[in-house]
Amino acid sequence: MILCDIGNTSYHFLDENRAYKRDVKSFNPQNLEENIYFISVNLALKKRLSKLQNWIDLSQYIEKSSYYETMGIDRIFAIESTSNAIIIDAGSAITVDLVKNGVFMGGFIYPGIRQMQKTYANISEALEYSFNFECDLDIMPKNSQDAITYGFVKTLYAEVMSHNMPIILTGGDALVFKKIFKDAKVDEELIFSGMKKIIKKAKLC
Amino acid sequence: MILCDIGNTSYHFLDENRAYKRDVKSFNPQNLEENIYFISVNLALKKRLSKLQNWIDLSQYIEKSSYYETMGIDRIFAIESTSNAIIIDAGSAITVDLVKNGVFMGGFIYPGIRQMQKTYANISEALEYSFNFECDLDIMPKNSQDAITYGFVKTLYAEVMSHNMPIILTGGDALVFKKIFKDAKVDEELIFSGMKKIIKKAKLC
Repeated sequence: MILCDIGNTSYHFLDENRAYKRDVKSFNPQNLEENIYFISVNLALKKRLSKLQNWIDLSQYIEKSSYYETMGIDRIFAIESTSNAIIIDAGSAITVDLVKNGVFMGGFIYPGIRQMQKTYANISEALEYSFNFECDLDIMPKNSQDAITYGFVKTLYAEVMSHNMPIILTGGDALVFKKIFKDAKVDEELIFSGMKKIIKKAKLC
Repeated sequence: MILCDIGNTSYHFLDENRAYKRDVKSFNPQNLEENIYFISVNLALKKRLSKLQNWIDLSQYIEKSSYYETMGIDRIFAIESTSNAIIIDAGSAITVDLVKNGVFMGGFIYPGIRQMQKTYANISEALEYSFNFECDLDIMPKNSQDAITYGFVKTLYAEVMSHNMPIILTGGDALVFKKIFKDAKVDEELIFSGMKKIIKKAKLC
C-alpha cells in the first residue's frame, strides 16, 4: 500500500515503511501504476490527480461536518489519527488542534519559525536574531535575543499547556519544539497514521 | 515644561497638557528655544540633538545597570513610571515588561498587529484575514479568521495573565488590546509620566 501526503512543494510518500519525497514540479504521477491513497493541500494537483484512476483521494471519506470548510486536509488527517491530544504541527505555519474523545474541539494557527524570524527582522534591524531554543522560559528575558524567543515561544507554550492534554508534535520543526515541549511525543508520521485509519474505516483495502 | 518622546517617524510632544506630534522629516528642532526634555529611540536624531543646548537627553539620568544594553529607551521610561505592573506597549512591536517593587524583572517582544497580519498573509493566501478582536478566546476556533486571531492574541493573553499582575496598556494599539485585556488600565502618557518622574528625581526643574 502506497500513501502520499501532497504539499505545495512536494509529494511525501510512505511505501510500506519507506518514506521519501518527490518534487511537485518534476515528479510525474502517471509514472506510478499501483494504487496510491493520497491527500493534497495542493488544490491544482488534487484536481489533476482526480483524472487518474489509481490515485485515490482519501478526503472524500472524511465526515466533513466535524471540521470547517477552509481547514487544511493535512490537519484533518492528523486529527483523525488520535483520540485525546493537542496536536502541534510545526511547519511554515504552526497549527495547534485539540481532540477530545475523538472529537475535534477547534484549533488555532501560529506562524512558523522562519516566518516569525522574518517578522521580527522586518519590525527592526535591532531584532534580527535567530531564536534561542535553549533560552530559559521560566524567567523574563533581559536581552534582545531571548526577548524575541520568549515572545515567540513562551506565549505559544503558555496557551498550549493551559489545556492540560497530552501533546503530539509533528511537522518539519517537531524536533526543535521538542526542546520546549519536553513531555510531548514526536510523531513524524501522524498524517500517515490518520490515512491508514481512514482506509481501514472505509474498508478500502 | 516641554517633554518629547522621539520615535523613528515622529516627535511626540507634551507641552503642559497639550500632546501633539511632528514629523521627523519636516520638523526642525532648532525652531524651539525653550528647554525640551527628551528621549529618543531614533539614534541619528539623538546624536543631532546632543549639539543643541536646550534639548536635554533624559536617558543620561537612568540607572543603566537596572536594564540591558540594547533595550529601547521608551520601554525604560515606561517602566520608570510604575512600581508594580506588567506593561504592554502595543505599537509596531508589542513589548511586555514586568516591574515588581520598582524593579525591572525582564520583558519580551511580540510582533504588532500589522506585522503579524502580514506574516499570516505571507504564509498563505488562505490566511489573509484581518484579526477579529471580538472573537471568543474561551473556545478553540473553528474558522480561519478566528484561528489566526486566537493564534496571535490568545497566546499573548495566556502568557501575560500567568504573571497575575495589574496590567497597563499603552502605545498606538492600546485601545484595541483593551478589548482583550478587559481589566487593564489604559495609559497613553505612560512614557511622559516616567520622564516627569526622572526629571523630579534628578532635580532638573
